[in-house]
Order: sequence, then structure tokens, then C-alpha cells
Amino acid sequence: MSTIIGILTGLALLFVAIVQQGGVSIFFNVHALMIALGGTFAATFISFPLPRVMRTFGILFNVFRSDVESPIDYIRQIISLSIKARRFSVLSLEQNAKLAKDRLLRVGLEMVVDGHDPETIRNVLETEIEFMVDRHAAGAIIFRTAGRYAPAFGLIGTLIGLIAMLRAVASGGSNVKAIGSGMAVALVTTFYGALLTNLFFYPVAEKLRSRTSEEILLARVILDGILLLQQGTNPRVIEKKLNAHLPPYMRRQYNFTEKYRESE
Amino acid sequence: MSTIIGILTGLALLFVAIVQQGGVSIFFNVHALMIALGGTFAATFISFPLPRVMRTFGILFNVFRSDVESPIDYIRQIISLSIKARRFSVLSLEQNAKLAKDRLLRVGLEMVVDGHDPETIRNVLETEIEFMVDRHAAGAIIFRTAGRYAPAFGLIGTLIGLIAMLRAVASGGSNVKAIGSGMAVALVTTFYGALLTNLFFYPVAEKLRSRTSEEILLARVILDGILLLQQGTNPRVIEKKLNAHLPPYMRRQYNFTEKYRESE
Amino acid sequence: MSTIIGILTGLALLFVAIVQQGGVSIFFNVHALMIALGGTFAATFISFPLPRVMRTFGILFNVFRSDVESPIDYIRQIISLSIKARRFSVLSLEQNAKLAKDRLLRVGLEMVVDGHDPETIRNVLETEIEFMVDRHAAGAIIFRTAGRYAPAFGLIGTLIGLIAMLRAVASGGSNVKAIGSGMAVALVTTFYGALLTNLFFYPVAEKLRSRTSEEILLARVILDGILLLQQGTNPRVIEKKLNAHLPPYMRRQYNFTEKYRESE
Amino acid sequence: MSTIIGILTGLALLFVAIVQQGGVSIFFNVHALMIALGGTFAATFISFPLPRVMRTFGILFNVFRSDVESPIDYIRQIISLSIKARRFSVLSLEQNAKLAKDRLLRVGLEMVVDGHDPETIRNVLETEIEFMVDRHAAGAIIFRTAGRYAPAFGLIGTLIGLIAMLRAVASGGSNVKAIGSGMAVALVTTFYGALLTNLFFYPVAEKLRSRTSEEILLARVILDGILLLQQGTNPRVIEKKLNAHLPPYMRRQYNFTEKYRESE
Amino acid sequence: MSTIIGILTGLALLFVAIVQQGGVSIFFNVHALMIALGGTFAATFISFPLPRVMRTFGILFNVFRSDVESPIDYIRQIISLSIKARRFSVLSLEQNAKLAKDRLLRVGLEMVVDGHDPETIRNVLETEIEFMVDRHAAGAIIFRTAGRYAPAFGLIGTLIGLIAMLRAVASGGSNVKAIGSGMAVALVTTFYGALLTNLFFYPVAEKLRSRTSEEILLARVILDGILLLQQGTNPRVIEKKLNAHLPPYMRRQYNFTEKYRESE
Repeated sequence: MSTIIGILTGLALLFVAIVQQGGVSIFFNVHALMIALGGTFAATFISFPLPRVMRTFGILFNVFRSDVESPIDYIRQIISLSIKARRFSVLSLEQNAKLAKDRLLRVGLEMVVDGHDPETIRNVLETEIEFMVDRHAAGAIIFRTAGRYAPAFGLIGTLIGLIAMLRAVASGGSNVKAIGSGMAVALVTTFYGALLTNLFFYPVAEKLRSRTSEEILLARVILDGILLLQQGTNPRVIEKKLNAHLPPYMRRQYNFTEKYRESE
Repeated sequence: MSTIIGILTGLALLFVAIVQQGGVSIFFNVHALMIALGGTFAATFISFPLPRVMRTFGILFNVFRSDVESPIDYIRQIISLSIKARRFSVLSLEQNAKLAKDRLLRVGLEMVVDGHDPETIRNVLETEIEFMVDRHAAGAIIFRTAGRYAPAFGLIGTLIGLIAMLRAVASGGSNVKAIGSGMAVALVTTFYGALLTNLFFYPVAEKLRSRTSEEILLARVILDGILLLQQGTNPRVIEKKLNAHLPPYMRRQYNFTEKYRESE
Repeated sequence: MSTIIGILTGLALLFVAIVQQGGVSIFFNVHALMIALGGTFAATFISFPLPRVMRTFGILFNVFRSDVESPIDYIRQIISLSIKARRFSVLSLEQNAKLAKDRLLRVGLEMVVDGHDPETIRNVLETEIEFMVDRHAAGAIIFRTAGRYAPAFGLIGTLIGLIAMLRAVASGGSNVKAIGSGMAVALVTTFYGALLTNLFFYPVAEKLRSRTSEEILLARVILDGILLLQQGTNPRVIEKKLNAHLPPYMRRQYNFTEKYRESE
Repeated sequence: MSTIIGILTGLALLFVAIVQQGGVSIFFNVHALMIALGGTFAATFISFPLPRVMRTFGILFNVFRSDVESPIDYIRQIISLSIKARRFSVLSLEQNAKLAKDRLLRVGLEMVVDGHDPETIRNVLETEIEFMVDRHAAGAIIFRTAGRYAPAFGLIGTLIGLIAMLRAVASGGSNVKAIGSGMAVALVTTFYGALLTNLFFYPVAEKLRSRTSEEILLARVILDGILLLQQGTNPRVIEKKLNAHLPPYMRRQYNFTEKYRESE
Repeated sequence: MSTIIGILTGLALLFVAIVQQGGVSIFFNVHALMIALGGTFAATFISFPLPRVMRTFGILFNVFRSDVESPIDYIRQIISLSIKARRFSVLSLEQNAKLAKDRLLRVGLEMVVDGHDPETIRNVLETEIEFMVDRHAAGAIIFRTAGRYAPAFGLIGTLIGLIAMLRAVASGGSNVKAIGSGMAVALVTTFYGALLTNLFFYPVAEKLRSRTSEEILLARVILDGILLLQQGTNPRVIEKKLNAHLPPYMRRQYNFTEKYRESE
């Protein structure tokens, strides 16, 4: 959410500044776009295997759609599930497993319902977490690499424009106006490269990195929660143990009177 | 304290140099500010989750308000508290616990008064220290990242100004004066970006990093001090053990005759 | 494959942009090429021992010819080989060993047919993997280093051009046209350096790095597969164990009814 | 010593080159100095706590005053002290302890004379070494950080000068001479920033780093020497053991016949 | 060897490009050389203790004189020595020890002839290897550091030239020709700095780094070979064990029939 707001605010500010300085049209140039974007994509496709680049677009979509959900909501959910499981049995969680939004929670609950032993559940979930971390780290590297190519191709485009402009000067018939126009076009590519990197590639790479640490925290909470739930641990103990994963300012006291209602 | 003096001195020096070179007004430009500050904030908000950026402002406030307190004062305080505890009992420290300014000392003393076992106290305090270190490290990363965006958006603003100016030249009617004025405006954004990063973002990031190591030292002293106090260790031994945490030039001999007065 | 497409697309985009801005001929300059390419090669040959640079060309050829083969195909192959081995004996794999395309699989199968003990097979194959990783890492370092030299020699060439041009101006007889022409030539070297690094050296270095991790995954699958096959493990267990190496989205269910046909 | 020669030679070369290109006066500008030096100090004072920056000046003084003393001299000294101790007793070293120039040697000898046990001596000396290493590492970081700020404030000063000059052009009445003069002044700040960093901040940071490794070597020799001396080890064995710390080309054979004279 | 060829080729290419663009004389300027070389040396001498810089010149000479010898030759030599030792006795190797070109091999053989125990031999040789690695790493750091100073002093020289030229413009009497000439001179220093770093300092630093890993491989082969030889191991086993250190493509089969002749 904050990602979209960030990009929109950034673009709006730039847009206003640009409009007031002479109109948008002079900042749009199709050759510049071909060089900056095309070069960056070409270099990125050489750098990484195609399927890996493609998977990154899926990750990108995630980054823009929503923030990582709060571990507090999951602690609450696991507590109410554990109360239900203690009242009826873990088999009663079958419907909850199906409806769980988070993949890790869903897989974990299904395994609990199916009666797998804790060691197997832990192994499967830890493998899931590991591959998720790998996938995100790989995504962050791709964006970071693209962010290094974009300004370089911005520079390359500007060099192309400058060389062409200087040759036009050399072959005569040129005047100050033509030089100004040529340089303006040449600089647009550098502008595209700088914008792409600093308002898109680097911030998204950084976002993926910071998201990963949040998702690991969340995954730890879910993993421990499912194992505690399977053992039929007292919900108050579950709450205490899961809260210990969170920084002090995040910890919430669960309202145990409303919990019974929720779990039905 | 030295942070504020540093920023004020830096700004004063720049201000004098600027005034003597042609007045402040030519260094203020609202479009430039929109691009440099707006772009940097936008990119930073994309890079990190909103609550984490917000928490960083709280940390920032701390950095400016005061320096890390000296471990020597805390050693002194712990010694006088330990004498009081040996004379009366740890229960007599209840009032001191409430009045303790440092969060770690307060939490630790409260746990001692409440009679928790040493292992629990150590665990709780170490978790507190760990989360504090994480919070500061996260803050340093945010400032460092913002410090990388600011010059980039300074450059982007300058490119926007240059392109607009060159187009104006190309569309005729322009003269040397207009070119000079256009370039001056364009360069102001680069100036803002460089100033923001080198007089604010990077120094604050560095400050957070160096503060963290001081605060860890202080936290170690408080943690050990509280555990020694709880065991009813001899104050002279406490002093010796806590002093061992400090570099030689920092160690002070405690005046044990005045201590009794203080502890009452 | 995607490497070649990437380079061709990148070159095509640049070519179109260049042609539309004034023709290709002005972007070709033999002195610029001598300085940018010659300087980069010279610096690279000083930096590394000759045989190591030579071996890198072999690796480069590999990068362009084909992508790393999918571990899924190898899992399939190992399963069908294991079925054959269980039906007849490991000796029946002699022909398959000879025909195996992958060096690791070939060496491994030969050792199984020759009846070496598992420990020896593991040692030999792990040494092979280690040397492959070393060779690729060394190759990535060479490309990365060359990628740092290329823009530097681009700059050096531009400096040479600029100095010569300025001297021509100083020695009189020069006019605006000659200056424009001189600067255009000078900038071509920077253009070559930037292009070489960002469309060739860095992407190939990155490719080698990302290939290595894929090849390690593949090698692990083959190594484990051969050892399981030698022990006469049940093919279904082999499939399960080898699949555990893959990220979830890659895992495929093997069709065990068609398998018998394949293995004959 | 080589530090002072290095700086003087560097300055002399630059001075000659400057004088021959147009006189020193044009390279001195008080505004430029205010911005480059003032900005760098301001940013550094924000980055680090005041007492730490102050301590660094003390370290700086050390760097300029003298080189690290050779471990060979200390090995020689320890051997002759050990002979004296074996002849008379460790108590006879009291006077030598007082006169020892090196702090570590002095503290160590005093502890030997006072009859502390080896474990305590080792602990005290190792703590001393550790804090010395920390202090030097902290100093190197401060110089390195200042070395990153200086060119940035050089650029900021140049931007201020350029903007002021361009505004003057824009407000009319300006001519080519004024522009030349304005740019010359503007560039002086960049010149100061580059000089400060490359002839002072970075070299001193590097020096502190390389000194630290020499001082650790020296400290190891002294620490081991004092412990061997305390045990009354044979001087020839002491020499052999201490020499093992040194690289082969540094090892010297001690002349054992002159040794007796020295030790009296 | 390839180092010299690399430097000569690089210089030749640049020389041709330079000559064709206007003659060598305009690229030679004594002030520029004083600033670029003088500044770099001054900064390097401040950064490191004098003896360490001096030792680096010795290492440099080695880099240019010859490549690291192939481990295959040494395996061959050790095998034939081991055959001789088994036939006669290790004492028969005294002459071979004296004639051995490699320092490590010489020291090792001498110790074998003198009858030291394996543990001592291993310790002495490992210390030799360690100090060699340290010396080379220290050398690489010095060249890398000098390579960072050279472009900075190139820039400083250019700034000096530009400021002097702009002042000359400002003080009147200047014309376009003088400006062109002044800028050409100013840019020569940047050219020197870039050339020094990219054709000398960085490549040599890289070379030292890559040599070190080759020399470690060679040293391991020699160390193991000497210990195996001392134990009177079968030459065929020695060959197999030493070959295991080499990458597969390097391994050679030793011709055991010619070996007896050689060893006499």
C-alpha cells in the first residue's frame, strides 16, 4: 500500500515540477525510452535465466498489492484455532485449513488435520520458508542489478544523442537552437535512467529485502503456533510463547473472553 | 548535543559563505525543494514499510535530544543502590525502580523487587537490548538509504531544469542571461541533494551506528550491575567488575565514603 | 538461449535508435575501438595468468550455447536408470554411462558400473563439483574485472581525443565545425566502454554467477541420484528424495507406467 | 616519520606545480576554506560523539610523531631483562619497569615485580591490547568518514559558487572575465575537498589501520616475552619463541655475549 | 611474462592511437607528471610504513619476471626425488636440496636431510607459506590503495590547471586559443591518473591476488610431497595424492619408466 502511495506521490511531485518548468511533452522521447528501457531489459535478460526473471514479476505484483500481514492477527487466529482444537479435536480445523489465506498456515493446518508427526510438519514448513526467502533474495538481486544497468544505459543514450548532435554541428548548417534541442533530447535518456533506478528498481529491491525479514518473523510465528496447537498447548501459554517473537511495542494482550465466540 | 551544535555550525558556515557570495534568495527554489525532498521521501517510503519509517522519526528525536549517558554515572548509581539493598533489602529499591530514568534499569530493578530469578531477568533484559539494537540498526539503514536517494533526485531535478532550459533556448527568444538563470535554478536541486545527504542523512546514520555501540556498552554494565546487586555482592567487587567493561581512561574510583549518604 | 536473445534485442534497439539519430557510420571509429578494446584486454591480461583467461573463453562459449538443463529431466532419467538397474543389474548401465551427455552423470555411472564403493564415488564427484564451481567463480571475476576496465579506457580514449582536439584549437586554424567533429570522435570511446561493460562484461559475469547456483543444484541432484541408484533404492523413494532438492513449484510427479518402456 | 616526509613531499610537489602555473594566491580563498573544512568538521561532529572525535586527535599526534618501534628491539630488551631476572630475581626489574617507554611493557613488568599470577597478567595485558585496537579502529573510521565528507562539501562549495556566478550573469552586467573568475573561485572548493581527502584523511585512516596490525604484532611479542620472563625461561628459548612471531626476513640472531653487559 | 606482454600491448595500442591523433608531444607534460605521480606516491607513503612499501617493490619485480611455476613440474620432481630417496636414503638428497630453485622445496629438503621430525617440518613450512601469503596480500593492498589515489591526483592536477587557466581568462588578454591550450594541459593530468591506475596499479594488485592462490596451491603440493617423501611412501601413491590437489584438466600421468633415469 505504502509502495503505491510512495510511487504516486513521487510521480505527482515530479509531474508538478515538470509542468511548471515547461510542459510534459519535452520530457517524452521515444528513442530515449527505447535505449533506457530496452538496454536495461536486454542486460537484465542476459544476466539471469529467463524463468527467474519471469518469477520476479510475480513477486513484484505481491509487493504492490499489499503489505505483509501483521503477526498479531496471526497470533490471534492461532489462539482461537487452538481453543477450537482443544474443545473438539484437530479434525475440526479441516474447514479452517481450507479457508486460510496464508499459504504456510494452510499447508501447516492441513498437515495437522492429516495427522503428520511434528518433525515432518516442521521440515515441510521450514523448506517452504527457505525457498520463499531464496525467491525473494533472488528477486532483490535482479532489481538491484537492473538498477545498476538503467543509469548506464541512460548515459549511453545521452552519448548517442551528443555524438549525433556534435556530428550535425560539424557537418555545418547547425545553429545554437539546434544544439540546444539536440542536447535536451540527449539528456532525456539520462533522466529516464536516473528515474527508473531511483524511483523503481532500487526502492523495490530494498522493499523486497525488508519484506523478507518481516515475512520470516511471520513465518516463525505461524510455524511455532501450528506445532504448539498440535500439541494441545494451553492457549494462554501459546500467546505468551508467540508474543516472545515480537518486539515489546508490538505485543498485544489477547482478550480471552471474546475468543470463544470467534472460534465457533 | 554535539549533533545540534554540528548541524548549526555547518549551516552557519554555509550561510555566511552563501550570503557573501550573492544572497540567500538565489539558493531558495520551491520546485527544487519539491523534487529533492519529495523524490527522496517517495523513494524511501517505497523502500521500507510505513511503520518502520515512522518509528525512525522517534529514534531521530532521541539522537538530537541528548547524548548517551555515561556508564560511569550508572556504575555509581548501581553501587549506591547495592549498598541500600544490602542495608535494608531489595524491596527498599521499589521507589528507586519507579524513578529510574533508563528503561533498562527501571525494568531490571522492578524485576529484582518482584523477586524474579536471575535467569528470567537476564533473558528479559537481553531481549530488550536485542530489540533496541535491531531498531537502531534498522534506523541507520533507512537514513543511509535516504542518503543515497537524495543526490540522485538532486541530479534528476538538475536534469529537468537543464532540459527545460535547453528547450527554451531551442525554441528561440532566449539569450545568455536566460541560460545563466536557467542553469542556476537547475543546479540548486543538486545543491539541495548534496546538502541533505552530507549534512543530515549520512551523519545521522553514522551517529545511530556509533550510538548503538555506546548503548550496548551501557546496557551490559546495567545488566551485569543488576544481577550482581540482586546477589547481594560486595559493592567494591561490583565496582571492580563493572569497571572491567570500560576502557582504562574511563575508569573512575568510586568514593565510598560519600556513597552512604547518596543511598539514603 | 536467453543470453543471445538478450544481446540481439539490446543491439537491435540501440541500432534502431542510432540509425534514426544520424546513421551508423558516425558511431564507428577504429582508434576508439583500439583504445577501448585494446586497453581493456591489455589490463585484463596483466591482471590474470594467461591460461586462466584462455579457459574463460571456453566457459563463455558454454554460456552462449545453451541454458543449464532442468534438474527435472535428470530426475526422470535417474529414475528410469534405477528401474533398469533393479531389473537387470548396475552392469546393464554401461551403455547408458557412455551415452550420458552430462559429464558428472557419465563419470558417476561409469564408477557405479566399475563397482567403486559409495564413499569413493562421492569423493570423486564432489571434487568435480568443487573444481567446476571454482572455474566458474574465476570466470565471473575475470569478466567483472574487465567490466571495470572498459569504462576507464573509454574515458582514457575520450581524454586523448579531447586533448588532441583542444591542441588543434590552440594551434589555430580551428573552427566550431572541427571542434564538434573532434568531440564527437572523443565521445565514441566512452560510448564503446559503456556498451562493452553494460551489454557484455557485467551481464556475462552475472550470468556465470547465477548459472553456478543452478549447476550446483543440478550436481547435487545427480550426485544423490547416483548414490541412491547404486544402493538399489526404490524408484519412488528416489523420486521423493530428489524432488526435495527442488523448490515446490518445480516438482513434477513422475509417470511410473511409462517409465518401464523408457528404461529398455 | 615517513608520514611527515610523505605529506611534505606531496605538498612541495603540488606547491611547485601550482607556483609555475600562476601563483599561489589564486588557490587561496577563505570562503572555499570555510565551506570545505567547516562542512567536513560539522558533518563529522554530527556523525560521532564529541569525546570520541577528541580522542582521535591524540591518536593523530602519535601517527605523526613516530613509527611503531621494531619488535626486534623489544625482543632484545626482553632477553636482557630475563637474564637479569634469572641472575638476581624479578624484583631487580623494578627500576626497569619504571623506565620502560612502552606502556604495555611497563604495566607488564610492574605486575611481574608485584608478583601477580600469570593468568591475571595475561588478562590485564590482553584487555589493554583489545582497547588499543578498538581505539585505533574507531580512529580509522572517523578519518575515513571525514574523507567521504570532504569531497562532498568541496562539490557543495563549487555549486554555491557556480549558482552565484550564473545568477550574476543572468542579472546582466557580466562578461567573460567575470565568468572565468567566478568559476575559478568555485573550483577552488572542489580542489580543497579533493586535497584534504587524498593527502590527509584517507592516508591517515590507512596508516592507522596498518599501524594497528604492527602494534598487535609488537604487543603479542611483549605479552609472550613477559610471561616467559616471569617463568624464568632460558633466554635462548625466549629468543627462539619470540622470533617465531616475526616474518623470516625480520629475525635477528641475538648476540649472547654482549647481553650480559647490557643487563647490568 | 603475460604481464609484460599485456603492458607492452596496451602501451603500443595507446601509442598508435595517440600518434595518429596529433603526436606524442602534446601528451607529455612535466607538471602533470609531478602532480599525478608525486601526489600518488606521497599519499601512499603516508598510508603505509616505509619498509612495507619498499618490500612491495621486490614483490613487483617477481610479478614481472616470471609466472608461477606449474605444480606438475614439482610433482614430477618430488616423485623422482622420492625414488632416489627410497633407493639410497634421504641423505642422498643433500645435493638436490642445495640446487632446488624454490625456497620452500629447498628448506623442506634440507630439513628432511637433517632428520627433523615431520611435525617440525610441517610447522616451519606452514609458517613460511603464511608469511608469503601475508606479504602478497599486503602488496596487493598497497597497489590497490595507490590505484585509488592516482585518479584523485589526476583530478587535482586538472583542477589546478583549470583554475589557473580561468584566472588567466579573468585577468584579460586571453583568447580561445589560450583557453584550448590551458584545458589540454589540465586534462593531461587526469589522463595520467587514469592510465596509471588502469594499466598499472589495479592490474598488478589483481595479479598479486591471483598469483597468491596459485602459489598456495603450489605450496600445498610441495609441503605434502616432502612429508610423503620423508615417510618413504610409494612413488605411485605420492603421484596419486599430489594429483588430487589439481583440477582434473591439469593432472598428468607420470611416465614411471623414464623416472629412474632422471633420479640418478
